[in-house]
Amino acid sequence: MASIKDVARLSGVSVTTVSRVMNNRGYIGKETRQRVEDAMNQLDYQPNQIARSLQRSQSNLIGVIVPDLAHPFFSELINSIEAYASEREYKIVICNSLQDAEKEENYMRMLRQNRADGVITCSHTLATSNYEHENMPVISFDRIISSSIPYVASDNYRGGELAAVHLMEKGCKNVLHISGPLKYDLLANRRKDAFELTSMKAGAAVESIEGAYVQATFKDNYQFIEEKAAPVLSDYDGIFCSNDILAYALYMFCYNHGIGVPEELKIIGYDNHSFTRMLQFPKLTTIHQPIDQLGEALAYSLINQIEKKSPGNHVQNIMLDVNLVKGNTT
Amino acid sequence: MASIKDVARLSGVSVTTVSRVMNNRGYIGKETRQRVEDAMNQLDYQPNQIARSLQRSQSNLIGVIVPDLAHPFFSELINSIEAYASEREYKIVICNSLQDAEKEENYMRMLRQNRADGVITCSHTLATSNYEHENMPVISFDRIISSSIPYVASDNYRGGELAAVHLMEKGCKNVLHISGPLKYDLLANRRKDAFELTSMKAGAAVESIEGAYVQATFKDNYQFIEEKAAPVLSDYDGIFCSNDILAYALYMFCYNHGIGVPEELKIIGYDNHSFTRMLQFPKLTTIHQPIDQLGEALAYSLINQIEKKSPGNHVQNIMLDVNLVKGNTT
Repeated sequence: MASIKDVARLSGVSVTTVSRVMNNRGYIGKETRQRVEDAMNQLDYQPNQIARSLQRSQSNLIGVIVPDLAHPFFSELINSIEAYASEREYKIVICNSLQDAEKEENYMRMLRQNRADGVITCSHTLATSNYEHENMPVISFDRIISSSIPYVASDNYRGGELAAVHLMEKGCKNVLHISGPLKYDLLANRRKDAFELTSMKAGAAVESIEGAYVQATFKDNYQFIEEKAAPVLSDYDGIFCSNDILAYALYMFCYNHGIGVPEELKIIGYDNHSFTRMLQFPKLTTIHQPIDQLGEALAYSLINQIEKKSPGNHVQNIMLDVNLVKGNTT
Repeated sequence: MASIKDVARLSGVSVTTVSRVMNNRGYIGKETRQRVEDAMNQLDYQPNQIARSLQRSQSNLIGVIVPDLAHPFFSELINSIEAYASEREYKIVICNSLQDAEKEENYMRMLRQNRADGVITCSHTLATSNYEHENMPVISFDRIISSSIPYVASDNYRGGELAAVHLMEKGCKNVLHISGPLKYDLLANRRKDAFELTSMKAGAAVESIEGAYVQATFKDNYQFIEEKAAPVLSDYDGIFCSNDILAYALYMFCYNHGIGVPEELKIIGYDNHSFTRMLQFPKLTTIHQPIDQLGEALAYSLINQIEKKSPGNHVQNIMLDVNLVKGNTT
């Protein structure tokens, strides 16, 4: 492999000059620049990014920590993060926490040791205090870590509100919310607050069941429905599920037990990720999160932090709008 | 942040000794080692992996190039690659080629410049010649690049055979295969060869339509079915689709046009990825690829190449078995 010395020799300039051309530093005559670039091409010279990043103390690596890579929501989110980051010439290192705090901590250590330029954290098993004193730029998805770490989220409160209003419009009087696990104190928990308050204000009776952390498989979600929701199902005429896979499992439970959806029970999900959009039986009524834009905002906002292009010194959180997608389950 | 000098000062030894402890090189007394390790802990010293990888010329980075990150097949494959690689202390850099040869080439350059230890390529838009003279260890998914680059694949020929045998057993006499795009010369094309040959030998009439490269969305696949398969559908009693999303779109087309599945037409898909496993209407009959094991084999085999742990000097390809999953569409 050709070295910087070979380039210098072939173009008849010093190593320093080659380095200046590469880094666009100092004055270089147009002709000299051309000679150096020609030599680089001729020798197929590949600058060693590791050496350069040591020099510039920038690695162009961004860590992305997610709870489950194979989940349709997160694979879509990563897809969008990668597309935007690659335009800005950043590379994505993927870390799968599997909701294990120790794994998440190991990843953070690994990213620090590799001098990652920043971290997008979408997994939230670590205590917020682990991130507060982090030297790297960090951006959080769907969770407030501290007032110095920005977050990106869609408007979860609005999502809960839209779900409640829709069920009320469809005539529901007794509604249930099946939330996600509440212990992680995520912004997603606001869906519950908004759903409960909006339903109550409209004069409906509202209750909640706390969801468990289950894998994004049909079987696990179906089992949860059988154990936790089935015994009380007849008390309700509308159910708002905190994610679409759970809503799908609930729909299938009703189908298998002769409960008419939407006649006897109305079901709303949350996410509208690729699985839901692909699904034809049923067309779920759901709250659409703009996953593409969320990924772009996460990458955009982190890279601006890294490159210190954020306007002013204050932390800018980004909150994106959601909307109701009407299907056949309400 | 503490430096190696701080560690040396606190433990009362030279920088060289600290470096020896870190790299497990040369003789170090037990007591000295303990003193250095205590100092590292006390100072929360994080060795700079970038500097170390420059020294050892190993980055512990593996590039994974896929055609579509959000596709359920590839997100599951990456999930499995990451799980195995992280056990062996390698990090995964994700590259999304979107079937664009220029993007794929840019990624290869970027990975070379960052001194990636190796590449897993699952995207196949670049000519094989681009990989043949690569200095990095490369492993290919589902494609023979050259006799010096190993591949991992599931047994595509067996998959085509199983599909044909099953349709014959169900009494089909006129069968159609809708393949993937054939121009990339992938091992997946063997599904077509095996399906055609097995059907012919059993005395059935068999034809093929070449699939287009379409995104993993229901809409694109449905449109393909409408344009290419619909006009000839009545000629066949069994169809073998090269992927499950296409098979699902075909099923929905039949449903929407009153064609009875499986009575009038039998449908088999391919993959059995998370989408298919989640799907309840219909339960697709399909050929199951062992995605978890494929990901593990890709990571395992590449890391052994990197660490020169492969037995002998010959290239070892890995081919995993597939099996038929019987659903309600046959």
